[in-house]
Amino acid sequence: MVKRAATGPVLGRALLILEAFGPRHTTLTLTDLARRAGLPLSTVHRLAGELVSWGALERDPGGRYSVGLRLWEVGSLAPRGLGLRERALPYLEDLSQVTHENVQLAVREGAEVVFVERIAGRRAVPVHTRVGGRFALSATGVGLVLLAHAPQALQEEVIGAPIERFTPYTVTDPAALRRMLADVRTNGFSVSDRQVTEDALSVGAPIRDPQGAVVAALSLVVRYGTVSPHALSPLVRSSARAISRALHSHPLS
Amino acid sequence: MVKRAATGPVLGRALLILEAFGPRHTTLTLTDLARRAGLPLSTVHRLAGELVSWGALERDPGGRYSVGLRLWEVGSLAPRGLGLRERALPYLEDLSQVTHENVQLAVREGAEVVFVERIAGRRAVPVHTRVGGRFALSATGVGLVLLAHAPQALQEEVIGAPIERFTPYTVTDPAALRRMLADVRTNGFSVSDRQVTEDALSVGAPIRDPQGAVVAALSLVVRYGTVSPHALSPLVRSSARAISRALHSHPLS
Repeated sequence: MVKRAATGPVLGRALLILEAFGPRHTTLTLTDLARRAGLPLSTVHRLAGELVSWGALERDPGGRYSVGLRLWEVGSLAPRGLGLRERALPYLEDLSQVTHENVQLAVREGAEVVFVERIAGRRAVPVHTRVGGRFALSATGVGLVLLAHAPQALQEEVIGAPIERFTPYTVTDPAALRRMLADVRTNGFSVSDRQVTEDALSVGAPIRDPQGAVVAALSLVVRYGTVSPHALSPLVRSSARAISRALHSHPLS
Repeated sequence: MVKRAATGPVLGRALLILEAFGPRHTTLTLTDLARRAGLPLSTVHRLAGELVSWGALERDPGGRYSVGLRLWEVGSLAPRGLGLRERALPYLEDLSQVTHENVQLAVREGAEVVFVERIAGRRAVPVHTRVGGRFALSATGVGLVLLAHAPQALQEEVIGAPIERFTPYTVTDPAALRRMLADVRTNGFSVSDRQVTEDALSVGAPIRDPQGAVVAALSLVVRYGTVSPHALSPLVRSSARAISRALHSHPLS
């Protein structure tokens, strides 16, 4: 879901150039950049030059563009990005070392999940999330937590729209999804049972800011059939509470 | 060292707004933002609004601005940021678990080191680096590696300028620094012996791209006096080579 920029012409075009990059498009020629941004070659050439001179883009010896380290540095100041990750990391590492399973940390951005950190378990079920990557709110353990605690209007929007099916187990029925979200709020954890891939189950729990608002979610992703969700939930919940406690001592902003 | 943007007026001002944020300034009021960017309040108000609508900035309920998750997401596409980090992370984790010491991964940006990842050792000597943070090239283990393999003109610029002293052991004499850099190239590793803090020693080694160019550096930082650099260097060098090999199979761009 690409938000279109409600910006003035020059800044808007510069942001369209940044939007042209994506996980499968990390390096682009000038022609690709112009095509993906939907802008004239001359405009892109000039603005990309300005972005390179600041460091928001980099240009390789072959003339191809990629996102620059300087932009990564500024992005690293986002409280919900590295700020959250730095505070949560020791607890994620503990959870990883205790379980050897996949550990994920995510926040909500509009109607999607954004993964802020993941630690892949050594012998764990493969998961395809990428730090900085997005996913539907309605299917993953972290997504169900974040959706259950999203503003009512957003919940209705997601439940009312067609829900993407990833496996035969993906819950797409609005009434069933509504019940799942109520369970998440009542139980304090979510269970995504083969809803994303047929071999994986994830259990998620909310991370709260000092005011009690849910600002992020933590999950463990295990191979389906190896561990029961009820065996995992106390571990995930207590780790999520430990991270909430850390946010109390060191707020994000 | 802040590069000033050689950009047109609108984009240039938007970039000045982004530059206003820093590790000790992650959340700013409109007034602070205007003061730090050196721009009129009305200009900042309008441009910050555009940046918020795209997601490059976020505005909290109190009206304060911070860097937005969307910018962090775009920044995460920088090949030298998360791209490098994702490929290197398994080797960094191995090194961390084998040694329980501090592991650092860094790249060079101009005349400075930028830390791309760090794993703090559980009982290791405290280090003050921050992911996304910068440091002088001339003092740290990773910095000495990156400086030793930087373009000749940059080496001369750094050696010719006054060198910041952090401890009585910081090498600031141009001739001595020149010898250290030659040693790094000859031996394939660097040693920063209490040059940053009096209790720490770090050993660094180069990470090379498939063409053989040094694109990053890896280091172990240990408490001074606990391990000899010559005991550490084979470990750091072999891990750095393993990461170089991983870049061969999965190039950064």
